[in-house]
Amino acid sequence: ALYSGMRPRGVLAATLLDNKDWMSSPITDPKEMEKNPDLMRIKMEMMIMDIQRVFCRALEAEEDGKKFQVDKWSRKEGGGGITCVLQDGRVFEKAGVNISVVTGNLPQQAVQQMKSRGKTLSGKNLPFFATGISSVIHPRNPNVPTVHFNYRYFEVTDEEGKKHWWFGGGTDLTPYYLDDADVEHFHKTLKQACDKHSTSYYPDFKKWCDSYFLIPHRGETRGVGGIFFDDLEDGDPEDLFKFVSDCAAAVTPSYLPLVKKNKDKAYGYKDRRWQLLRRGRYVEFNLIYDRGTKFGLNTPGARYESILMSLPLNASWEYCHKPEPGSEEARLTEVLQNPRDWV
Amino acid sequence: ALYSGMRPRGVLAATLLDNKDWMSSPITDPKEMEKNPDLMRIKMEMMIMDIQRVFCRALEAEEDGKKFQVDKWSRKEGGGGITCVLQDGRVFEKAGVNISVVTGNLPQQAVQQMKSRGKTLSGKNLPFFATGISSVIHPRNPNVPTVHFNYRYFEVTDEEGKKHWWFGGGTDLTPYYLDDADVEHFHKTLKQACDKHSTSYYPDFKKWCDSYFLIPHRGETRGVGGIFFDDLEDGDPEDLFKFVSDCAAAVTPSYLPLVKKNKDKAYGYKDRRWQLLRRGRYVEFNLIYDRGTKFGLNTPGARYESILMSLPLNASWEYCHKPEPGSEEARLTEVLQNPRDWV
Repeated sequence: ALYSGMRPRGVLAATLLDNKDWMSSPITDPKEMEKNPDLMRIKMEMMIMDIQRVFCRALEAEEDGKKFQVDKWSRKEGGGGITCVLQDGRVFEKAGVNISVVTGNLPQQAVQQMKSRGKTLSGKNLPFFATGISSVIHPRNPNVPTVHFNYRYFEVTDEEGKKHWWFGGGTDLTPYYLDDADVEHFHKTLKQACDKHSTSYYPDFKKWCDSYFLIPHRGETRGVGGIFFDDLEDGDPEDLFKFVSDCAAAVTPSYLPLVKKNKDKAYGYKDRRWQLLRRGRYVEFNLIYDRGTKFGLNTPGARYESILMSLPLNASWEYCHKPEPGSEEARLTEVLQNPRDWV
Repeated sequence: ALYSGMRPRGVLAATLLDNKDWMSSPITDPKEMEKNPDLMRIKMEMMIMDIQRVFCRALEAEEDGKKFQVDKWSRKEGGGGITCVLQDGRVFEKAGVNISVVTGNLPQQAVQQMKSRGKTLSGKNLPFFATGISSVIHPRNPNVPTVHFNYRYFEVTDEEGKKHWWFGGGTDLTPYYLDDADVEHFHKTLKQACDKHSTSYYPDFKKWCDSYFLIPHRGETRGVGGIFFDDLEDGDPEDLFKFVSDCAAAVTPSYLPLVKKNKDKAYGYKDRRWQLLRRGRYVEFNLIYDRGTKFGLNTPGARYESILMSLPLNASWEYCHKPEPGSEEARLTEVLQNPRDWV
């Protein structure tokens, strides 16, 4: 893969500039990338560009001709991003795939928000670097689940000049109707990617995912989970990078078969209403609890359209809605209240 | 008025129990109310019950036969509420009017969240009392604005045994299309209620409203404002109670004429789409920034259905939506970015 960092110097920049298949030219100047092809920042940027391309093209292939709108943006405080959105398609009601490479200084409080746990970093205004890919796909057909994934890499320099770095990420599924075989395929694909690196990863990160995507006031999870991890900083950074790359590469094979299988299934008004209600819960989680959304909206000069592209095109809230006992809606709700093991 | 506290003892409880026009029987035991008719807690409860009745009946009169669903609920930690919701009507897509009378102990952190500013209260687990009325009305026709109001009274006892109390509240309007005369009527009615008590109230609380209902990431207010105040604790509690009562009583005359005037106006698909997008912004404000929603969801044993009844039945998010220059949608947006004086 282009992002392996093994490519001989001189070829890298040319490949980046020539490759017409990227969603856009890179955020970092290709000449800068060429100078430091083995730097983790550069390797991450190339990896996420590649994932963005592969995933967007795979989704476009499922649509009826509609393509992603590509917005390359820059942030005056440093860095920028590439936001790809396909909205109001026949298959995808709203599909967003965003990558960003951001540098600058962050107040200590904001830095703490980047980490879910672990040590406090000292210093007031810390230089930081953050890069990542983030995506939410809301299909139109209620038989196709919503998928979300995010893979990220951070660097922060404390006031003693020490550089701290860590990886984070995850992929999770939010079905509207439960097809056990689909959910099993999804989890199995993620587990395979994890198992190549450590057999403890999948069970640990599956559990972490269920607890992260909890909507406390409703006592239910956002979806049927997947994997989630943060503050990954122990061990060889190259090994961790390979793990994160494998997880990101597993998104398309974990999700695309579910789109192909279900996108043309028949559905009715009742199914659509239920899907919109579940999307309301999705909005609740993202706006009230999600650390990524909070961090994004608190970052000075952030592009809020790229952060809020995760919100569905349409969502509903019904007062005191209760699924009918014994219905498919009730079966899903029960699983969301009692997360299940899928592999 | 029943809530003047001037009624001779013995009549109060009987009136409360006999009056078939209340949405429900009171939350506090009428015998308890009867014992202490001059206690601020009791007077507030009777005032908000009366406002709930008047407002709900006035809205029902605009509907085609549909009535409010009334849910009386109790909270195991102490107190309860009466939630009235009219959903999916012809005129009102979602109308919620909730009153609550809640007692218990709150962690110091949660107590601080109740106050927008002012002194820190000492102590770990403080006994508190909170009562209030809260309402959001989302009409179906985009020519009818959404209205929100909330009037509340708090008591907290600190660790030295000193009782602190304060009032808060406000009424604000969120139009989808700007009818200047409507907005002027709305603000004028609120100003009249304020002016009876202090000529500084309306200008001060109008400004406070514009700054409170700001959506920072979008650089626009939720609507065209109204009045908002918090931590009202200086002066005679009886005077403040009369002020709050007059503000609450001004809700129906400020808003009902707008419903009557616009509820049957013609509208098209474009108008409805715009209304749904604006409702998405409403959701953003309520879930990300609103202190009331946060306080509610953080209160142990809170009834989340009564808190989230403020969310619209339907809402939309379009990536990078921009109103057409020169359009009515653009004119509204400009006013939301630059709050105007209406009286």
